[in-house]
Amino acid sequence: MFENSQESRTSLSEYGEFGLIDHLTKNLKINHESTIKGIGDDAAVLDFKDERAVVTTDLLIEGVHFDLSYMPLKHLGYKAVMVNLSDVYAMNATPKQITVSFAVSNRFPVEALEELYAGIQLAADLYKVDVVGGDTSSSTSGLIISVTALGSAKEEDVVYRSGAQPNDLLVVTGDLGAAYMGLQVLEREKEVFKVNPQSQPDLEPYTYLIERQLKPEARKDIPPLLKALDVKPTSMIDISDGLSSEIIHICKKSEKGVYLYEEKIPLDPAVISVCEEFKIDSTTIALSGGEDYELLFTIAQSDFEKIKGNPNFTVIGHMAEEKEGMHLITRANQKIPLIARGWNAMKEKED
Amino acid sequence: MFENSQESRTSLSEYGEFGLIDHLTKNLKINHESTIKGIGDDAAVLDFKDERAVVTTDLLIEGVHFDLSYMPLKHLGYKAVMVNLSDVYAMNATPKQITVSFAVSNRFPVEALEELYAGIQLAADLYKVDVVGGDTSSSTSGLIISVTALGSAKEEDVVYRSGAQPNDLLVVTGDLGAAYMGLQVLEREKEVFKVNPQSQPDLEPYTYLIERQLKPEARKDIPPLLKALDVKPTSMIDISDGLSSEIIHICKKSEKGVYLYEEKIPLDPAVISVCEEFKIDSTTIALSGGEDYELLFTIAQSDFEKIKGNPNFTVIGHMAEEKEGMHLITRANQKIPLIARGWNAMKEKED
Repeated sequence: MFENSQESRTSLSEYGEFGLIDHLTKNLKINHESTIKGIGDDAAVLDFKDERAVVTTDLLIEGVHFDLSYMPLKHLGYKAVMVNLSDVYAMNATPKQITVSFAVSNRFPVEALEELYAGIQLAADLYKVDVVGGDTSSSTSGLIISVTALGSAKEEDVVYRSGAQPNDLLVVTGDLGAAYMGLQVLEREKEVFKVNPQSQPDLEPYTYLIERQLKPEARKDIPPLLKALDVKPTSMIDISDGLSSEIIHICKKSEKGVYLYEEKIPLDPAVISVCEEFKIDSTTIALSGGEDYELLFTIAQSDFEKIKGNPNFTVIGHMAEEKEGMHLITRANQKIPLIARGWNAMKEKED
Repeated sequence: MFENSQESRTSLSEYGEFGLIDHLTKNLKINHESTIKGIGDDAAVLDFKDERAVVTTDLLIEGVHFDLSYMPLKHLGYKAVMVNLSDVYAMNATPKQITVSFAVSNRFPVEALEELYAGIQLAADLYKVDVVGGDTSSSTSGLIISVTALGSAKEEDVVYRSGAQPNDLLVVTGDLGAAYMGLQVLEREKEVFKVNPQSQPDLEPYTYLIERQLKPEARKDIPPLLKALDVKPTSMIDISDGLSSEIIHICKKSEKGVYLYEEKIPLDPAVISVCEEFKIDSTTIALSGGEDYELLFTIAQSDFEKIKGNPNFTVIGHMAEEKEGMHLITRANQKIPLIARGWNAMKEKED
């Protein structure tokens, strides 16, 4: 699905700025009736009718957010879209449009940008969003991608971070920590490759982890599933920085406390085994790894029966009064304070 | 108004990512009732009611779009907003919200980002837009700013590039070429400074040009003025890349030809005199300089009486059938083809 086919090299200077945009966007289709006018004017024109609009934006920088030595450009384009759509789903909204801006140095041939755009287009097709604008520029250093996503939702369906109530259940989708451990595996192979470029790594045991890192999927299934189950979360956020910092965001915005149970945190078996291999605590990874793009939300206890047994959901704790504080209950039944140790904090510690 | 006061230096690492956003955005006010939720959730939530939404985005890269050796950070923040608002006005719409993402290397102290944000906030206050989101990141090289602007307009008020008709008058606001010549003056002074750091340049004769380069203003007065005059343009675009390439955009999107009259192109006396000083043709600068952020539009001949004599508007030509082609009529009454020679093309030529 994701073959890289950079055989020919066409210099960016063969296209002007406008020619390049026209070339890259010529295959883009408009899916939504809410897109009145896409690329090709001073601004896109959208019609959200009587729904609320949501807007979110992310900036991805080479050398900070991605490493092109193991991140294929098509995957990068796909992931840049996912990161933003995940934020739209976290509002319980439906993404409709994206704008994609990027800056590249002249070392990139046109074919490389075509790969990047192929990933963006694949994401747009699978998630049914329209690419309605953007900007291209030269860069003095590496590749920079800025994506803005727009979506819409009925006023009564929008879910904020701030609505959690005491005793609400804390629920997470999917499993955690895999994307971070996928990154660790890729970083290790990069180091091996530096020493011995002839080495043939066997990455098969790490397929799931690497896919979670290189080709994450935003949880577009969750808002309609919750609707079908007649559950409206009282608060919701997506997990980009790590479970602990996202829980703390919900607690602070909702002015509530929390009890998180270590034994409940969902981990894939591949995460458990790779954590043993790397001699690193899997709970720490789930709490602080980040880039899972799962959804974390709270629901009233009375809604528990509606989600019980659904394989998409794991109840990992419950909310409390603010004065009770934020706690992790360990497997040994110890109560320790929950602290924010996101992606950035870990990176700083490692450096 | 724009003093730079970087006396103290606080390291970015003293704030985390979230702390930095909180610190920089703490003074931002929400002006619009269309902003239901600004910064502080996974996405901003907006209510455009029964109006069309417009969205536009621009990416500004250090070393490509700006040079911090003569661009104060406060001006840069202001200009980054203007560039986007100008696109919203070019749709005949009213800007309502912006998102601002930036990436910086650790060489920037917090005080520098405060200056940048002060410029963004000043622009937001003066143009009555809400800053509703963004992203901050570290950068491996220079400063990167990505702004997305959202606005709204009644469906019947939106003006595209594509509606120009044969014999429509071609009209431009303000005057052209000053921002580009301001840049030339600043570049010259930078070279002088490199040779002799003690030199005290007299920039007073160039005040207007430099201000047009460093602190451009988007034409927020024009859409309501046109409304008051009961004129709806048949097409409109903003002048960011230079008059000739913007005229060509209108011609191509409208599938029309054009006659542009050199003698009608509005030039400030300061542009004429600095062009003589630099021994460069002022018409070339107006056609190709860019960054004027004036509006270019077409109106039906029958609307001419409504704009006649208004100092904001200059009729510089008229549209024609597509088969007639795109022409510049020189002062010597020669007919020469109008070609796209935007900012980028000029830079390439100079390099």
